[in-house]
Amino acid sequence: MSIRIGIYGYGNLGRGIENAIRQNPDMTLAAVFTRRDPSTLTIGTADAAVCHVKEVEQYKDQIDVMILCGGSATDLPEQTPALAKNFCVVDSFDTHARIPEHFANVDAAAKAGGKVAMISVGWDPGMFSLNRLYAGAILPDGKDYTFWGKGVSQGHSDAIRRIEGVLDAKQYTIPVDAALDAVRSGSCPALTTRQKHTRECFVVAAESADLARIEKEIKEMPNYFADYDTTVHFISAEELKRNHSGIPHGGFVIRTGKTGKDLEHNHVMEYSLKLDSNPEFTASVIVAFARAAHRMHREGMSGCKTVFDVPPAYLSPKSREEIVRELL
Amino acid sequence: MSIRIGIYGYGNLGRGIENAIRQNPDMTLAAVFTRRDPSTLTIGTADAAVCHVKEVEQYKDQIDVMILCGGSATDLPEQTPALAKNFCVVDSFDTHARIPEHFANVDAAAKAGGKVAMISVGWDPGMFSLNRLYAGAILPDGKDYTFWGKGVSQGHSDAIRRIEGVLDAKQYTIPVDAALDAVRSGSCPALTTRQKHTRECFVVAAESADLARIEKEIKEMPNYFADYDTTVHFISAEELKRNHSGIPHGGFVIRTGKTGKDLEHNHVMEYSLKLDSNPEFTASVIVAFARAAHRMHREGMSGCKTVFDVPPAYLSPKSREEIVRELL
Repeated sequence: MSIRIGIYGYGNLGRGIENAIRQNPDMTLAAVFTRRDPSTLTIGTADAAVCHVKEVEQYKDQIDVMILCGGSATDLPEQTPALAKNFCVVDSFDTHARIPEHFANVDAAAKAGGKVAMISVGWDPGMFSLNRLYAGAILPDGKDYTFWGKGVSQGHSDAIRRIEGVLDAKQYTIPVDAALDAVRSGSCPALTTRQKHTRECFVVAAESADLARIEKEIKEMPNYFADYDTTVHFISAEELKRNHSGIPHGGFVIRTGKTGKDLEHNHVMEYSLKLDSNPEFTASVIVAFARAAHRMHREGMSGCKTVFDVPPAYLSPKSREEIVRELL
Repeated sequence: MSIRIGIYGYGNLGRGIENAIRQNPDMTLAAVFTRRDPSTLTIGTADAAVCHVKEVEQYKDQIDVMILCGGSATDLPEQTPALAKNFCVVDSFDTHARIPEHFANVDAAAKAGGKVAMISVGWDPGMFSLNRLYAGAILPDGKDYTFWGKGVSQGHSDAIRRIEGVLDAKQYTIPVDAALDAVRSGSCPALTTRQKHTRECFVVAAESADLARIEKEIKEMPNYFADYDTTVHFISAEELKRNHSGIPHGGFVIRTGKTGKDLEHNHVMEYSLKLDSNPEFTASVIVAFARAAHRMHREGMSGCKTVFDVPPAYLSPKSREEIVRELL
């Protein structure tokens, strides 16, 4: 029997979930929930319902896993605990510092409802977290490094757009090759923020705008740009659309560590992602973990779970026998 | 309370386990079991027992997890089921084709004894298998590639040593850069054995040996070398010792796949290892999974398990709270 998925919020991530469901024959999209007027929303799946978020409780028995596609700043801290009372849920909450608090809230709700609620699923947090855990457990005497990019940072692009005279902007985070090579050498370098990543900005400015002032404001912006070597390119709206309309991303998790009688041997474990579409890849990770959430719930589990709690076999549509035969 | 480990077989892997235990403060080496005369064996851990394999049953209540360090050809098919009746065990059985059969034998024994028996732990099978599973579950429309090396293949080195006139030899398996690049491009190339890896051999020949004949025998050896581009270097015993006495290895697991409404977006997931010591890294993986086996047994589980069955959190000595706070 097909796993019936609900999508709660229909932006880039929600559409990515819809596409990913189509790639997984053991799943069906049951309904999309939106804060907009449902009659104004056209989705890509002919036989799925489109409903207002207010109606969600009526779908309690028609949805196996609800996937939350809202933002981490204000949506998920409220929505995930609220929905976890009635549904198995998966979210991609990514405000690292607030994860323990979110975990506690979601855990209480999910336990009360007897549901499985999986939080912070995606690639970071998510697959990168898993790789940090595996690598750290295997090489206790070592050091972790995470690099992001090359990719678009939505938060940094938004920050540039808020500057006076800026019409539009795209910001790329770029890992520094020399820093990657130093890490891979096993020398365990201490790297400053500036040494690890550079930032490249493509900015569309208003006709009369003072470009020098905009460039200065970007480069000196605290937290976002001041600690980085930043390059600013002013381009036309057409060029921005033509060359910078994608949402690529990716990155690297590297752990180097030592083993041996006198710790004389070095090892490098590296995991990397190169993604044409950040939201679609995130959606693909979430959908695999939705399968696991459903199985764990059917086995009687409840409460808040993370990627660390999921036996990998639960992610695959294949049987345990197939997995052992084909993948081990 | 410390996890008490037994080592069954004291070769390269057994010594690697002993070193790895020293890097994990929650573990203690309780005893080493050998087929040799125990009085002739000196180990690196002062307070661990050295016992003959015949005595192993007497240690039933003094060992939490027995780590089997024998070979896959003849040792493990007998030893793992035999020991799984009385001990939680971990092995590194790596004869891919015989894993289903080994699984069934070990599962029956471990269930009869109420123990957890984890098989085929290491990096391939092991960490590479896990990465094939995760990547396949996330990107169903895609293709997996595994490359090995640069590293020493013990089996191929042994095969060369059996040739008449060869005193000693070391064989390196080397992935072809052009093939790796083609895979990373997302073009899903069909690659022949010859296109993926080359083989490089360093051979010490007897003084009067016919070098041309030895080189020909190596290059034409079926299964081992005939399907590869192979290079043969004749060197002195001193040079072999000086430059080729290590046991490095490593490799790459890459999956490329597509997402999107019209599968218009490409993604590349890559996992790679660069290891100074193959047996020590394998030992480090095994020790982390021994921790998991112990926890799973304490939770009441039994039977044969693989890396696919282990919730990643069980591998770490850290608490769930620490893991969520520090690694997610």
